[in-house]
Amino acid sequence: MAIQFASRMDLLKGSPIRALLALANRPEVISFAGGMPAPELFPVKQMKTAVETVMDEQGRTAMQYSSTDGFFHFREQIADRMKAKNGINTDPCNILITSGSQQGLDYAARVFCDPDDVIVLESPSYVGALNAFKACQPRFVEIPTDENGMIMEELERVLATTERVKMIYVIPDFQNPTGRTWPLDRRQQFMEIVNRYEIPVIEDNPYGELRFEGENMPALKSLDTKGLVVFLGTFSKILAPGYRIGWVCADHNILQKFNYIAQAAALQASTEAQLVISKYIDLFNLDAHVSLLRSCYRKRRDVMLAAMETEFPAEAVFTHPNGGLFAWVELPEHMNTNELAKKCLEKNVAYVPGDGFFPSGTNHRCFRLNYSNMNEDRIREGIRIIGQVIKENM
Amino acid sequence: MAIQFASRMDLLKGSPIRALLALANRPEVISFAGGMPAPELFPVKQMKTAVETVMDEQGRTAMQYSSTDGFFHFREQIADRMKAKNGINTDPCNILITSGSQQGLDYAARVFCDPDDVIVLESPSYVGALNAFKACQPRFVEIPTDENGMIMEELERVLATTERVKMIYVIPDFQNPTGRTWPLDRRQQFMEIVNRYEIPVIEDNPYGELRFEGENMPALKSLDTKGLVVFLGTFSKILAPGYRIGWVCADHNILQKFNYIAQAAALQASTEAQLVISKYIDLFNLDAHVSLLRSCYRKRRDVMLAAMETEFPAEAVFTHPNGGLFAWVELPEHMNTNELAKKCLEKNVAYVPGDGFFPSGTNHRCFRLNYSNMNEDRIREGIRIIGQVIKENM
Repeated sequence: MAIQFASRMDLLKGSPIRALLALANRPEVISFAGGMPAPELFPVKQMKTAVETVMDEQGRTAMQYSSTDGFFHFREQIADRMKAKNGINTDPCNILITSGSQQGLDYAARVFCDPDDVIVLESPSYVGALNAFKACQPRFVEIPTDENGMIMEELERVLATTERVKMIYVIPDFQNPTGRTWPLDRRQQFMEIVNRYEIPVIEDNPYGELRFEGENMPALKSLDTKGLVVFLGTFSKILAPGYRIGWVCADHNILQKFNYIAQAAALQASTEAQLVISKYIDLFNLDAHVSLLRSCYRKRRDVMLAAMETEFPAEAVFTHPNGGLFAWVELPEHMNTNELAKKCLEKNVAYVPGDGFFPSGTNHRCFRLNYSNMNEDRIREGIRIIGQVIKENM
Repeated sequence: MAIQFASRMDLLKGSPIRALLALANRPEVISFAGGMPAPELFPVKQMKTAVETVMDEQGRTAMQYSSTDGFFHFREQIADRMKAKNGINTDPCNILITSGSQQGLDYAARVFCDPDDVIVLESPSYVGALNAFKACQPRFVEIPTDENGMIMEELERVLATTERVKMIYVIPDFQNPTGRTWPLDRRQQFMEIVNRYEIPVIEDNPYGELRFEGENMPALKSLDTKGLVVFLGTFSKILAPGYRIGWVCADHNILQKFNYIAQAAALQASTEAQLVISKYIDLFNLDAHVSLLRSCYRKRRDVMLAAMETEFPAEAVFTHPNGGLFAWVELPEHMNTNELAKKCLEKNVAYVPGDGFFPSGTNHRCFRLNYSNMNEDRIREGIRIIGQVIKENM
């Protein structure tokens, strides 16, 4: 007799990104695959001072259990930051600390979705979110996007004609995988529609602070008058992902449900990691660090875009992100970026093929490029090789 | 229109323990409620050295993303420990690092259970596991227990007559909440039955190393010839819970499913916490630390049992645990330990009422006492007060 697994396990397979990362981890590989920050910019010395201070001042507290919500002072710091960076007026009581934003995505689907409920999202969207949501066995409805993000007429049409829509998942700032950002009027239109249909929104914002040019856009949550928007934030991209610390910001009646899921699924996020990041914010200048990231990633983006202009054939169309970690490339219809990925990997260059970012999985002509993790020389070299492989296979 | 939540949310409420802990956290409260280690025994200085070493030697690695499975060397250390402490011959490749054992419980239910599937467990069982499992909307079937744990004739009868049993959840060592340990013959009987029915077993073992007297029992996993047992381990009770580091040990076909759920739900456990605990194990003597815990908790257990002998009425029956963190008290049938808990809390003493440990929730005469977190004087004083409240309400 074979062991019987739950039906959700039929939908869950290894993420193609994580499988690729395993290969791309070899030092000789030029990897544009993961969404990894530049490790050479991590403020290691400052974090060492922060953790030393925590161990000296509150070592026993750091090593003990703590509340499911998270430390109050830490949540105050996060509330202050959301006000300053995202225009969101909120309160520590509306914040729950999670083990990274990925956990927030998992909790969101579990709070809102029964099997066969509908999740509406941008097409394409973050493959890790699709994977998190699949564990709840929903149906996905993809809304087409243009250079300004989700197309609101399509969203309206879908909401008007679709039953059981339980949540809308969006990444309005430097979207993963396209790097695109919704302008203000699109955000206002979106909130007008959402307010009419009263559907909860998951606003995933890991990259919002990494803007290279132009003005910050207000978060959807800052335009939320009905308590429908659940905002997911994280320290993974502005400080370090290794601590696995993110947060959920939502109105009380929704946040309480996230708290219940958190109690069931994990009890709490790491006590030590919360105190260490909190201490880093108290002792040092996170804004200055984020400026450093912005300036480094801007240069890398510039190098990548310039290299693509030179090395890619004219038929390859790519986005010009104003921030974040990713650019998105579309090749002519007959091209298959899964096949190309293998050929690139043989030449020690890695990217993520695009089909995983579409729930339908039927688009094989796109791929995602990360520019935060490789230095400028390696970006030039890697893009040259990808360009060569594309040309050889056109 | 009210926001619609998933049907699982009807089952999930705040854990009574976590709500109680919020009140019991006031310093004037003598709390026997949580399962918290003694904070004064945390090896704060050594952990500070460990984290300093990690930040000096591998700071960038510690702050970066890492694999879903966990660091290989860390999993080697855990495999070695499982062999030495639990008699389990295993391999780093059969180990997945989790954010605490609670996450392992959550993953287990999601790997094996669809709604209305059956989970078989000891009666009573760990309330946090019940809560984790409820998110998958299973049915629970409780197997009666005696002083030697689960009664095997009852297990056999249930498995022979119950459809859709997808997993069996047990805590054979110093069970939460009763403190009871299964003797060897009971373990052998259990594995014989399980092998016949080929049902996956979740063996939760957070307390096994905290034995005060008598011989270590082999883990069920060490008796597993068919790859049915999933072993959950954790550093929460032998080192510190604040880092949220536990692990799952299972055969490949099962562990792969846990890996898929982990990718979807969290990506990975904290990189930093894995490296810090791994470094602590390399630099210091975890066995010596566990000896210290054993000797302290043994004294505290002795003090608690002696105080109960003196202060509780003869009608109160309680367990005599040979290890772990908990004792379990049963009062006469007409008593209600929820009511008594409120009266005790008015006198600044806290315990956890027993009904939450029964899925049926119908047993109101029991309660759980933790003896690891309070010093001996406070244990004597707290038991005196509980004894007084019991007598006043008999």
